[in-house]
Amino acid sequence: MIIPNTERVTFILTNLNILTDNIHRIMNQQLAVGIDIGGTNTAFGIVDRRGNTLKQGKISTTKHKDITSYTDELYNALEPLIDEVSGEIKGIGVGAPNGNFYDGTIEFAPNLPWEGVIPLVNIFKEQFGLPVQITNDANAAAVGEMTYGTAKGMKNFIMITLGTGLGSGIVINGNVVLGHDGFAGELGHVIVEKEGRSCGCGRYGCLETYASATGLVRTMKELLSEKKTDCVFRNIPYEELTSKGIAEEAAKGDQLAIEAIDFTANILGKALANFIAFSAPEAFILFGGLARAGDLLFNPTIKYMNENTLKIWKNKVKVLPSDLSANDAAILGASALVWEMQS
Amino acid sequence: MIIPNTERVTFILTNLNILTDNIHRIMNQQLAVGIDIGGTNTAFGIVDRRGNTLKQGKISTTKHKDITSYTDELYNALEPLIDEVSGEIKGIGVGAPNGNFYDGTIEFAPNLPWEGVIPLVNIFKEQFGLPVQITNDANAAAVGEMTYGTAKGMKNFIMITLGTGLGSGIVINGNVVLGHDGFAGELGHVIVEKEGRSCGCGRYGCLETYASATGLVRTMKELLSEKKTDCVFRNIPYEELTSKGIAEEAAKGDQLAIEAIDFTANILGKALANFIAFSAPEAFILFGGLARAGDLLFNPTIKYMNENTLKIWKNKVKVLPSDLSANDAAILGASALVWEMQS
Repeated sequence: MIIPNTERVTFILTNLNILTDNIHRIMNQQLAVGIDIGGTNTAFGIVDRRGNTLKQGKISTTKHKDITSYTDELYNALEPLIDEVSGEIKGIGVGAPNGNFYDGTIEFAPNLPWEGVIPLVNIFKEQFGLPVQITNDANAAAVGEMTYGTAKGMKNFIMITLGTGLGSGIVINGNVVLGHDGFAGELGHVIVEKEGRSCGCGRYGCLETYASATGLVRTMKELLSEKKTDCVFRNIPYEELTSKGIAEEAAKGDQLAIEAIDFTANILGKALANFIAFSAPEAFILFGGLARAGDLLFNPTIKYMNENTLKIWKNKVKVLPSDLSANDAAILGASALVWEMQS
Repeated sequence: MIIPNTERVTFILTNLNILTDNIHRIMNQQLAVGIDIGGTNTAFGIVDRRGNTLKQGKISTTKHKDITSYTDELYNALEPLIDEVSGEIKGIGVGAPNGNFYDGTIEFAPNLPWEGVIPLVNIFKEQFGLPVQITNDANAAAVGEMTYGTAKGMKNFIMITLGTGLGSGIVINGNVVLGHDGFAGELGHVIVEKEGRSCGCGRYGCLETYASATGLVRTMKELLSEKKTDCVFRNIPYEELTSKGIAEEAAKGDQLAIEAIDFTANILGKALANFIAFSAPEAFILFGGLARAGDLLFNPTIKYMNENTLKIWKNKVKVLPSDLSANDAAILGASALVWEMQS
């Protein structure tokens, strides 16, 4: 009988232990599915507790006029990913426009192809046999920000998404505010201008008609027609104006572009000052296309907010950029709902 | 030996039992002290779990420039009442302008005689040897409304006090919103008019400069100077105008008084519509002097609110009068903090 070299045996055993542990960890790790339903596409992914996206995919939302054909394609794309990963899938979180947490439905979403009330949570539960939670996309983003992003550790903050519209997720005492009916946090539809710009909601002067990527473009067009100042945008077709383009030209020093951003920041800053009077948050987290304008937008917004808030809050409330990547954030936010369900 | 009448013995024993039970109930009943610190007077009372005020009293706030002389007089007036009642005093709840729940202090209250930061909770704890909780007067009123009043059973509502100013207490998921710093819920200082009326806070256009008893009087004065319409108030001195008087004349049909209330309701209704977009409450509860104008104020306020809110909330959010009596409400609200502490 060969007596083994003791050191070698110890080395092998130690590594076998580490390997076994890792296999166990991977097999036992808790995972969540995040589904972000947008007007154009639906993105989905499988995320671990640390916010790493292990698998992801995408299908078209817009091509499915029929909800069953939509959920079938989604199931066929997502289920194989679920089968591939090692670990325990704890549930599915869904972020969608007009997603109602209480009812598990999507209700009359103007930017989605399906009419009326869609019982999405029940459909997914039946298909996947997993716990499912839904909320609106902005609330999902707030949960993601709290779980994985800039707002980690914060109990009171407001997440503002400056995209095509203005979405918001309000967190108070560590919980997303859903309100009596599940639809709270529609800060894009606070009316900030009497007889102001017409809004998709049918009313006038809503915050999102000014403070959003679309709002900035509208402001730029107004300035181009009102003023005679030289501006690079006089030489491109009106319909090619984008908020990204405006931010880029402002950074290069275009006066009218700077003015357009300042106008936007003024309205946004004053609105934030009013929101502080409501919930006295620790911070606002800005996210979305327009937020990527960076200091150009943040500095004047912070200035106007502090000029317009009560003395007790001057220079005390932070305005911070989200640190989640635009691609991941929606899926991460939706998936984070799953951890919330369990707590 | 006389054999007692069995029925009589049973009767006596039963009644002795009931009497003993009642004595036990009274001796063991849980009571709370409520202290409402106002700019002029401080009212206090001892309240049972059902909201019955067993004892109450009052001292002057305004005459005490020194906090120690104030707390001494309060102690000397309140302690004998505590000794008189039967039952267990569970604690003291205090409602005060700028009362900070987190710090247990009153901070820079413009309408109170003491400057700077007053550590009132610590002072009372030492004096009375009881648990003490403080919050601002409007938050205390909201807790009172939730515990004993119109909002009983509601988890999401906003209490609005229309007095000299506009105070607010916001309840979300059954908890008063305090915010990151304990000062949340300053809805009177949401700016609703650009370059509007000057406000005591040093800014312009705050909601409370329009929607409050004082605001209504300012509106009436503006209308009297702008318009030539006949009005009963043309014949009384400007400084004798009161919101109560305006409501009374409006009820009698005075056109300008009706217009003044309608103007107030318009601004208030639009502000409520914006607040719905924030927290989607089940109801607004209106309280305070101006709320006593009743339907004259409520009907147009509800109309303007519904005209200005998103479609999903039209005709869904209630606007209700408080059903607590003006005298009791402040004490009840402050005392209700004690039950909140224990839950």
